Amino acid sequence: MATDIRLSSLKEPVDVAEYLFIRLHQMGVRSIHGVPGDFNLVALDYVDKCDLKWVGNANELNAGYAADGYARIKGMSALVTTFGVGELSAINALAGAYSEHIPIVHIVGTPNTTSQKDGMLLHHTLGNGNFNVFADMSREISVVLARLNDPAEIANQIDHALQQCWIQSRPVYISLPTDMVQKKIGGERLKTPIDTAFPENDEAKEDYVTAVVLKYLMAAKNPIILVDSCAIRHRVLDEVHDLVDKTGLTVYVTPMGKGAVNETHANYGGVYAGDGSQKEVKKGVEASDLILTIGAIKSDFNTAGFSYKTSQLNTIDFHSDRIEVRYSSYPGVHMRGVLRKIINQIDLSKLSAVARPKVINEIEENTDNSETITQAWIWPRVGDFLKENDVIITETGTANFGIWETKFPAGVTAISQVLWGSIGYSVGATQGAALAVADSSASPSKPDRRTILFVGDGSLQLTVQEISTMVRLNLHPIIFVICNAGYTIERFIHGMDAAYNNIPTWRHTDLPSVFGAQPGQSRSYQVRTKAEVEKLFHDKEFCAADVLQIVELYVPKKDAPRALVLTAEASARVNSKV
Amino acid sequence: MATDIRLSSLKEPVDVAEYLFIRLHQMGVRSIHGVPGDFNLVALDYVDKCDLKWVGNANELNAGYAADGYARIKGMSALVTTFGVGELSAINALAGAYSEHIPIVHIVGTPNTTSQKDGMLLHHTLGNGNFNVFADMSREISVVLARLNDPAEIANQIDHALQQCWIQSRPVYISLPTDMVQKKIGGERLKTPIDTAFPENDEAKEDYVTAVVLKYLMAAKNPIILVDSCAIRHRVLDEVHDLVDKTGLTVYVTPMGKGAVNETHANYGGVYAGDGSQKEVKKGVEASDLILTIGAIKSDFNTAGFSYKTSQLNTIDFHSDRIEVRYSSYPGVHMRGVLRKIINQIDLSKLSAVARPKVINEIEENTDNSETITQAWIWPRVGDFLKENDVIITETGTANFGIWETKFPAGVTAISQVLWGSIGYSVGATQGAALAVADSSASPSKPDRRTILFVGDGSLQLTVQEISTMVRLNLHPIIFVICNAGYTIERFIHGMDAAYNNIPTWRHTDLPSVFGAQPGQSRSYQVRTKAEVEKLFHDKEFCAADVLQIVELYVPKKDAPRALVLTAEASARVNSKV
Ligand SMILES: Cc1ncc(C[n+]2csc(CCOP(=O)(O)OP(=O)(O)O)c2C)c(N)n1
Ligand SMILES: Cc1ncc(C[n+]2csc(CCOP(=O)(O)OP(=O)(O)O)c2C)c(N)n1
Ligand SMILES: [Mg+2]
Ligand SMILES: [Mg+2]
Repeated sequence: MATDIRLSSLKEPVDVAEYLFIRLHQMGVRSIHGVPGDFNLVALDYVDKCDLKWVGNANELNAGYAADGYARIKGMSALVTTFGVGELSAINALAGAYSEHIPIVHIVGTPNTTSQKDGMLLHHTLGNGNFNVFADMSREISVVLARLNDPAEIANQIDHALQQCWIQSRPVYISLPTDMVQKKIGGERLKTPIDTAFPENDEAKEDYVTAVVLKYLMAAKNPIILVDSCAIRHRVLDEVHDLVDKTGLTVYVTPMGKGAVNETHANYGGVYAGDGSQKEVKKGVEASDLILTIGAIKSDFNTAGFSYKTSQLNTIDFHSDRIEVRYSSYPGVHMRGVLRKIINQIDLSKLSAVARPKVINEIEENTDNSETITQAWIWPRVGDFLKENDVIITETGTANFGIWETKFPAGVTAISQVLWGSIGYSVGATQGAALAVADSSASPSKPDRRTILFVGDGSLQLTVQEISTMVRLNLHPIIFVICNAGYTIERFIHGMDAAYNNIPTWRHTDLPSVFGAQPGQSRSYQVRTKAEVEKLFHDKEFCAADVLQIVELYVPKKDAPRALVLTAEASARVNSKV
Repeated sequence: MATDIRLSSLKEPVDVAEYLFIRLHQMGVRSIHGVPGDFNLVALDYVDKCDLKWVGNANELNAGYAADGYARIKGMSALVTTFGVGELSAINALAGAYSEHIPIVHIVGTPNTTSQKDGMLLHHTLGNGNFNVFADMSREISVVLARLNDPAEIANQIDHALQQCWIQSRPVYISLPTDMVQKKIGGERLKTPIDTAFPENDEAKEDYVTAVVLKYLMAAKNPIILVDSCAIRHRVLDEVHDLVDKTGLTVYVTPMGKGAVNETHANYGGVYAGDGSQKEVKKGVEASDLILTIGAIKSDFNTAGFSYKTSQLNTIDFHSDRIEVRYSSYPGVHMRGVLRKIINQIDLSKLSAVARPKVINEIEENTDNSETITQAWIWPRVGDFLKENDVIITETGTANFGIWETKFPAGVTAISQVLWGSIGYSVGATQGAALAVADSSASPSKPDRRTILFVGDGSLQLTVQEISTMVRLNLHPIIFVICNAGYTIERFIHGMDAAYNNIPTWRHTDLPSVFGAQPGQSRSYQVRTKAEVEKLFHDKEFCAADVLQIVELYVPKKDAPRALVLTAEASARVNSKV
């Protein structure tokens, strides 16, 4: 096949690597994450040429997490690893991206096709001549698996992979053998961008579903909207906002949906997660006779241990691949078209809406009048510290539950991994998110938005070296390390005092300088009392976030957000269920 | 099935987790590596009870590398991770262990069997109800995949998995659902240890092969022995040593076989790796008319880029699953029995042997008379620094090639990953190896052997946090960080001056204290000249290795061991082969 192609017959020939990187640039990617390896080095020569930046992460797992964070801000990202050792080091990050619907293009540099065919005994193999094992491992966590072995197919394969990555909002896997990197393929098609429009719904079907939804909506006495993660991932936020504005209905978010709607909007009702919700929110949602849930992922941690007290009889679920009205399913219908039709067709005179809870950052005093920073106190307090358009990243652990109590200013983006829950994720994601912000800012050294991380002292240890990449890229995140002497979330699930839930004590404040920060390139802080927090949050220099900053935030070892305590109990129950 | 078992009918009932850990203890394991997660916490309660220690690594990949290092010293190791996020983070280490023939028991805590059956939307899943995806990913890198879902089968499953792990010397995967951890199974069989003897060869076959080998051996004018990695992995070193002692033949080792034979033995001939060998060694091996290769893995990096100049017509290959005499294969015959019979039956009066090269640590002066520490100088010099029984670990990069030039004292164990070649490996492996030494020493705080690591400044960055685990366990490795401003090995393959081969500059000397070392618990050094190296190597305190020590060893950026330069050229050639 390959030999059928005459170079002379190619329209505007380009090298394969160039084609791939140009396409990525067209999709909005500006920086490429990853780690070099001898099977990808030649491809890396094309990064600069295509007006992209090479990140060069500290390791592949971190690179994968960073690519995930980058994609959540910039819409898509790319990760380059090397055969076997590199791709497998990153695979947990890709599985997380699959689980959480994040579009990452994973490009794996592989041995040349002849070595593969001959089953050569190369480094980075299992020694058994099988070159398919690693790609096969990625099969179930990639929406497309494209092995670029034949120049005649490559342009199609790349375009298809990138298109599906975007549309399905999940990772794709592309293997690029060393001998394909510089093969020529036709570049003329690069003039036509990849079509990323989601295929339109069948119109009759869409009209039908819309009518059904409207019927229930008109009949409801107390309808509400509940926005979840897939509304963000599958890009229907414009529709959500228009629906809220037009209908005036109260809009709640789930933990994974936080950031999807403007929390200062008059219609905002708070965070709903069953028994993990604030009392007024719980009442508000559970009193509703029609909940329009948009992009729901009703997982254990997103629902405080499956503690919703809502009925499917009162629920209409909008998804990217189906609509579910009570117990009726309408497969193959994307929510976008239906939401838009509802907005256009709704008869407001017939819609009823009821009062909503008022959401504020209610900062609780300690009951013992102490100066201790408690989990109950800090999270609402953070809400007042945040500024418009901040990017806030929280790690699995107390942070991911505490943030439910933080009311955001407008424009805040929240990043976390509530479903996949791989600890260490947030540190890589912070690098990626901060870089995406820089890549989107007029002046990258003065980013338009702050990037703020809350990470547990336990989780940080898994991926700490990514701080080095932040230093190297001269990013300015604020990193709050929640110092509570170990795995507090796990203590609440099992082993409150068990040694396996302890961790070694680190000197976090020295991390930036160990990892290469020059004097003046970073600042470190420790806060142990509320007064110290107040002082820090009023420190103009700190708030300006013009260098990398790290804060040791000391909270009690056995203190956890209310929602976490509940969820942990539920988890322990499910684990031991016989 | 499960309900058929009456508790009352079980002989000496024990909990499943207890059974598993007792078995591991019986196999020689004393410490369990891993990271906690809610699906394994209850199992971890049994570690102490079974007289085992819990390590608690900084992350799962490091834990997997550490388990690998531990197994190379202690014979076998165990790794505990949690479903999805944990196991996938470690999978690259397990693939490496599979590739390099290292027996690791990977125990994965999974959700309870009911949740799995119901396809519940739990954290650490892909959100699609498929609980098999992650185990399936481990299938091709595990010799046994045991899912402990039925108490009636569990004892058999565990015994089979551990037996095969030992015999095949490769990883096994065991998934342990939360609801199985405390199920009762029969403990009586624990009184009979697992049979780890390798199945005997078919006698007639073994005799036949022995006769064939002896015939060639008697006919040869210049026979030699070449020992490779699988001689170590498949535990035939007693046979190798007896063969060498009895026959007086010259014995060479490959890079992966280093440490297999006593390099101070009169018969030791040096390291053979084709064109990567020293001149005399190359001459010695390639002049032979019969090479007995024992446990060969003739991979690219183990042969300096497939540069053997030997003929299969002059070769007999001994493997754990077959013997190959010239082009004849004898499948299903393990080398052990054949080697033993050769030793017993050989007629020494008919055996001819020729003179061998003398192997010394020939320490070269710099040609420019400078004080610069060069790669050519340091590796022989290290040979004189080493003591008997040291454990020496080298990382993929200049270290793994430099070590070819180091002649070891007796009893030295060498650890490296020449086939899999995943960088960062050596840091985890050092933790595991040092712990295994401590676990084998009469006084763990005064270990019998030193553990010495040579790691590149690039590789260290991938897994640096494992130094924290070393501090926590109060281990005393010596860590040499080869400071050459980046990925030197890659520069020689492609991109000598490319930015992607640079790395951020770290302050390595501060690492122990950042990672929790108390004053007096560690020492740090920097050496930039030969004189400084000499001083350090004569420093009694340093050589005593009674605390964790880290040494920044500065060498030129574009300096590489001779063998690496050759191998890199060959790799670049293979990569670009069209
Ligand atoms: C990769 C991975 N390994 C292990 C776990 C299990 N796990 C979940 S939370 C947690 C502890 C987090 O501790 P920390 O970051 O200190 O959070 P906090 O103390 O604030 O709860 C662990 C070990 C996981 N989720 N992911
Ligand atoms: C997990 C993994 N990622 C990437 C690579 C590709 N790789 C092989 S060697 C190397 C550089 C090693 O650099 P360093 O440790 O500094 O060694 P030296 O400079 O002494 O050669 C890299 C990136 C790999 N082998 N494994
Ligand atoms: Mg903690
Ligand atoms: Mg280096």
